Amino acid sequence: MGRVAVVYDSLSGNTQKMAELVAEGARRVEGIEVRVVNIAEPDAAEVACRADGIALGSPTNLGVMSWRMKQFWDEKMGPYWMQLDGKIACAFSSAGAWGGGSEITCQALNTVLMNFGFLTFGLTDYVSKTASAHYGAIAVREPREEEVKEACRKLGERLAEWVGAYIDRNPDLHPLVREPGRKRPS
Amino acid sequence: MGRVAVVYDSLSGNTQKMAELVAEGARRVEGIEVRVVNIAEPDAAEVACRADGIALGSPTNLGVMSWRMKQFWDEKMGPYWMQLDGKIACAFSSAGAWGGGSEITCQALNTVLMNFGFLTFGLTDYVSKTASAHYGAIAVREPREEEVKEACRKLGERLAEWVGAYIDRNPDLHPLVREPGRKRPS
Amino acid sequence: MGRVAVVYDSLSGNTQKMAELVAEGARRVEGIEVRVVNIAEPDAAEVACRADGIALGSPTNLGVMSWRMKQFWDEKMGPYWMQLDGKIACAFSSAGAWGGGSEITCQALNTVLMNFGFLTFGLTDYVSKTASAHYGAIAVREPREEEVKEACRKLGERLAEWVGAYIDRNPDLHPLVREPGRKRPS
Amino acid sequence: MGRVAVVYDSLSGNTQKMAELVAEGARRVEGIEVRVVNIAEPDAAEVACRADGIALGSPTNLGVMSWRMKQFWDEKMGPYWMQLDGKIACAFSSAGAWGGGSEITCQALNTVLMNFGFLTFGLTDYVSKTASAHYGAIAVREPREEEVKEACRKLGERLAEWVGAYIDRNPDLHPLVREPGRKRPS
Repeated sequence: MGRVAVVYDSLSGNTQKMAELVAEGARRVEGIEVRVVNIAEPDAAEVACRADGIALGSPTNLGVMSWRMKQFWDEKMGPYWMQLDGKIACAFSSAGAWGGGSEITCQALNTVLMNFGFLTFGLTDYVSKTASAHYGAIAVREPREEEVKEACRKLGERLAEWVGAYIDRNPDLHPLVREPGRKRPS
Repeated sequence: MGRVAVVYDSLSGNTQKMAELVAEGARRVEGIEVRVVNIAEPDAAEVACRADGIALGSPTNLGVMSWRMKQFWDEKMGPYWMQLDGKIACAFSSAGAWGGGSEITCQALNTVLMNFGFLTFGLTDYVSKTASAHYGAIAVREPREEEVKEACRKLGERLAEWVGAYIDRNPDLHPLVREPGRKRPS
Repeated sequence: MGRVAVVYDSLSGNTQKMAELVAEGARRVEGIEVRVVNIAEPDAAEVACRADGIALGSPTNLGVMSWRMKQFWDEKMGPYWMQLDGKIACAFSSAGAWGGGSEITCQALNTVLMNFGFLTFGLTDYVSKTASAHYGAIAVREPREEEVKEACRKLGERLAEWVGAYIDRNPDLHPLVREPGRKRPS
Repeated sequence: MGRVAVVYDSLSGNTQKMAELVAEGARRVEGIEVRVVNIAEPDAAEVACRADGIALGSPTNLGVMSWRMKQFWDEKMGPYWMQLDGKIACAFSSAGAWGGGSEITCQALNTVLMNFGFLTFGLTDYVSKTASAHYGAIAVREPREEEVKEACRKLGERLAEWVGAYIDRNPDLHPLVREPGRKRPS
């Protein structure tokens, strides 16, 4: 049974709300165990390492992840480097404003994940006419708008699909099989 | 008299509308000449090179600038490399969706500009409670919401301020002098 | 049988030499078909779409891929968007100098690939005491130094391993199985 | 008299050696005061804020700056946000390997600096046939090769030139005036 971990840091609670939505989406996929863990919890690194796929979320602070998230990877995850290759990963981030750096923060999170050997991905799909998560899910402050929430959920769902299809070797969970008619909204 | 050029590519007309707003903002600053030029125009490279500061705008296509914009820099601007150091620059981009890559496209535009020796900048200011342009101005499709429009204008205004303060050597145009009470909206 | 395509643009021939090395590395993995294709060839998009994994290489031009490579994705690959999700991909680039933008170009290539739904990866491994390809393989001009060449080969090998392990569902090809004692050189 | 601060974090001493070279280069420009400060020093934020231009250096850790450098900006520099607009800045970083993320780390440092309103720049010039610092100066481990050292020095020199030309309003310090014959090595 594939395991997904949603691993996050949150100062205001906004990124935590995104984490819960990402987990909600991952649970849409049958046969996947989903855990949500704050990096301040003592077993966060262990949960992250045991998972087959992780969604990594941080507040956007100055267009980069929070220093606590960076410290988590430098110090807590560091010892596991070279042992995690081939796990699957994606990113999400909440910023103070549109244009405030949430995409660039997702890119920095993906950079860290790639360094650790994760296969990183974004959503191709639009979740509405005006929302996507091509390089990770983003929100401004609390995720309130339905399209922002659904981008988080869809990201988690896709993560669970990749874990199911590639780590659990269940080809029926590949998104091109599960959702054959996917299209960009006109 | 300082010169600002707003240099853009546009397929759907959305980035062009942003360009006009950026120019409108630049005109808020006294004593600055403002030109708007589409890269398809025959004198676009000449206008860009003659300017003291440029705002560079491209549609977001796959999280990178349009191939036409890249070709413009590779082929039309290339001959001027090493002659433009110290000009001031910023970026803007319209994407199909929030989370669709507009910030990352601005980052790629800034990368090209930095390669050419431009001093690149973003807005510190929020233009509303939920909009900024920290790494360039972004829009989803056509810039319609007032905060999106104002982020474009404010970016152009800031560009004109830097050109005035640093190239024209008019310290009264430094934004910390012009707008001493700037604050982040609560 | 898994298929790897090495898809590249090259002006000076340097990126082409990298492409051949990447292909050489991919051939180290048993049971994987390897194709090398220049984007100027008429069937390049078809080869890329038929592959289970691609290594994408471009010259570093201004810290972004060449305009031809961007045009290839905008125009030739565009029609296949939403049909390629879940393929596996990595990047490589040759620049004019160290510090000349080859890593940032790999990042831009990875951004395009991520937009298309590819799972993107880099090498965790060092291939020598002073060479890696954490975010893609890089070279300065022609790949001549053995460590630069081996970074290209190793990237191709890793790509073939992921294609074998995940697309062909052969767990023996997972790098943690194939090379259990991998370590960072001291 | 213009002030340049070289602000750095260093674990192994390698980034510190780069910092000293950057400072050495800045001292080539007449009339510029140069300070070097480790972010662990109690007055580091004060030195950074008082400067007209800063060169910011961090070890490359996972393709992003060290968590200590991020914490410095989040916590020590945070209170000065919106007061530093228009200062001039650049980045440098030492990684464990070529292809190990030093350019991407410089990009992350530039992102933080841009968020704070700094005008960020790189070197157009090549310092040798195979070395540049287009987006910041990079080194693998200790800066030992003469071209790597000179890239650091040249970055500091350029920073001092921009501070002199734009903040001190001394047009003779503009690099196009100081070095009129600059060319790319063939």
